[in-house]
Amino acid sequence: MAARRIARVCVLTIPAWLLAATAALAQGVWLPSWNEGAAKQAIVKFVEATTDASSAQFVPPAQRIATFDQDGTLWVEHPIYSQVLYCLDRVRTVAAQKPELGNAEPFKTVLSSDREAIARLSKEDLGKILAATLTGMSVEEFQTEVQSWLATARDPRWHRPYTDLTYLPMQELLKYLRANGYRTYIVTGGGQDFVRVYSEQVYGIAPEQVVGTAGGTQYGYEKNGNPILTKDPRLLLNDDQAGKPESIHLMIGRRPFAAFGNSDGDRQMLEYTKAGGGLRLAMLVLHDDAVREYRYGPAAGLPGTKVGAFTQALYDEARKSGWIVISMKRDWRQIFSFTK
Amino acid sequence: MAARRIARVCVLTIPAWLLAATAALAQGVWLPSWNEGAAKQAIVKFVEATTDASSAQFVPPAQRIATFDQDGTLWVEHPIYSQVLYCLDRVRTVAAQKPELGNAEPFKTVLSSDREAIARLSKEDLGKILAATLTGMSVEEFQTEVQSWLATARDPRWHRPYTDLTYLPMQELLKYLRANGYRTYIVTGGGQDFVRVYSEQVYGIAPEQVVGTAGGTQYGYEKNGNPILTKDPRLLLNDDQAGKPESIHLMIGRRPFAAFGNSDGDRQMLEYTKAGGGLRLAMLVLHDDAVREYRYGPAAGLPGTKVGAFTQALYDEARKSGWIVISMKRDWRQIFSFTK
Repeated sequence: MAARRIARVCVLTIPAWLLAATAALAQGVWLPSWNEGAAKQAIVKFVEATTDASSAQFVPPAQRIATFDQDGTLWVEHPIYSQVLYCLDRVRTVAAQKPELGNAEPFKTVLSSDREAIARLSKEDLGKILAATLTGMSVEEFQTEVQSWLATARDPRWHRPYTDLTYLPMQELLKYLRANGYRTYIVTGGGQDFVRVYSEQVYGIAPEQVVGTAGGTQYGYEKNGNPILTKDPRLLLNDDQAGKPESIHLMIGRRPFAAFGNSDGDRQMLEYTKAGGGLRLAMLVLHDDAVREYRYGPAAGLPGTKVGAFTQALYDEARKSGWIVISMKRDWRQIFSFTK
Repeated sequence: MAARRIARVCVLTIPAWLLAATAALAQGVWLPSWNEGAAKQAIVKFVEATTDASSAQFVPPAQRIATFDQDGTLWVEHPIYSQVLYCLDRVRTVAAQKPELGNAEPFKTVLSSDREAIARLSKEDLGKILAATLTGMSVEEFQTEVQSWLATARDPRWHRPYTDLTYLPMQELLKYLRANGYRTYIVTGGGQDFVRVYSEQVYGIAPEQVVGTAGGTQYGYEKNGNPILTKDPRLLLNDDQAGKPESIHLMIGRRPFAAFGNSDGDRQMLEYTKAGGGLRLAMLVLHDDAVREYRYGPAAGLPGTKVGAFTQALYDEARKSGWIVISMKRDWRQIFSFTK
């Protein structure tokens, strides 16, 4: 009976010495792939100050929201977004089912595998490809299609599934924030339904915590009377630039206390985050490591890029506004879980 | 040191005897305002089967989603939705700030307090009133306006704040589901931003778990350069009827295992929920208690209503599809926390 009483008491109250020990260990345990430096210091300082009930900067657990861009912030976005590769690959399957499509442009060009011709496709052409590969099916069919692509597609540089190409330091950061009561959200310009297929397995982020560019669905019935949600081409959320804070308001309804991005598309999300009261953390990943990943900006003298541009104007705003720039080269000891 | 070891072990593993005792007590402890009967039995059977790891109907915690309509399901919707009263009351404040508005229709009619004339306002007139009272301000200003209205407005029948008019049995149900790992969402035809102001305090439901009819916001800057989100009249989500499953997909991305409603506007949400695999729970509140609340249908021989109609067709679909109808009169021992 005495043992039971002890057990009951300690289930309900975690001993203070254990909490203290955990806090002391946190810095070393949680971010092993981060080199010592300003970026890691800013993260640890932010987490410690906002979770310490005696701090003026304490944030109640219910308000602890952290938002992460995905492409270029949590995983590789070069030479092109993985979702675009999915859409191009998917054209082959769609054309097999609907041969008349394969004989028409822009699908004919995609099927030709002529990379230069594909690179010259217009915005309108890309729109047709997105509509044909991302809409018209039930939400469950789409999930199955993406799952089966992810299981077999391999990136050409590391010869690995695209879902392996997440940055280990950012994975550690997600876990460190969650261990401190933060709810982690993805806020991506990529497709919400696409990212939701793998977000839980890859990042530990549940589908309901993925905010992305989203089309509508249409509720209807199958021949047997079963209800069905069909993906339609109507654009509901364009989750890029000003669309990011707007979507955060719609989908979360709270201003984040921490936000992470890597390109001009993330500027407004970081501005909105930092404009809240108290201590807020805004960070930008700079791709300055050509050897271990890619090197592009054009901020800080890096080469320019069509995908995920980090402009000098963004860099200047970051310095002026106290946002932290993460140098992949200097701040990250290791980039992927599969490299040393 | 031995004591510390015991403490460490039991922090990490909740003893099995405690879990068992909790489960045994659950039925009696969690739903005291429910009378014994088919409705309560269906709830307890559903929760026990879907949370028992040895059951074929077990649902992993990550998938435990329960969605609740608000008006007429969680709180009183008669004689008129509380949010409509907010908008009508708000016209007075808006007209004080913009006198030219007060001299124009339909605002002049609202200010006249002529109830019959107000009841005759057209849909277009109501649209103008909603636009004037729900849009054009920052999201923070809107929150403050709703908070201050809720603090002072009183319903004419019970002379209480509208937020007191929630149904005690449904509050118990929300807590019972959450205690069993379900994440509870509101899925309402009412305004998402409106309900989010009080959902956490009133229902224990965080803003990010409120899905509702939603307008857009516009990201911009104040004169001092601070970013600001302004509510605009563009309708993004019409969260009623087919819009409910569509919004559930957009905002949650998972099909619920349990759904609760009270009117024709909830039909598609319940259909969509029940069409998933495994054991699903669909329930409808029937307002058949004129003494303790209101009496309207027109299903089951009750009088018809303009607000929150529960039609005979819905009643027939419920019987055919195994949805449970909750009789407020028979199934609820107590309706409000402030009545006995």
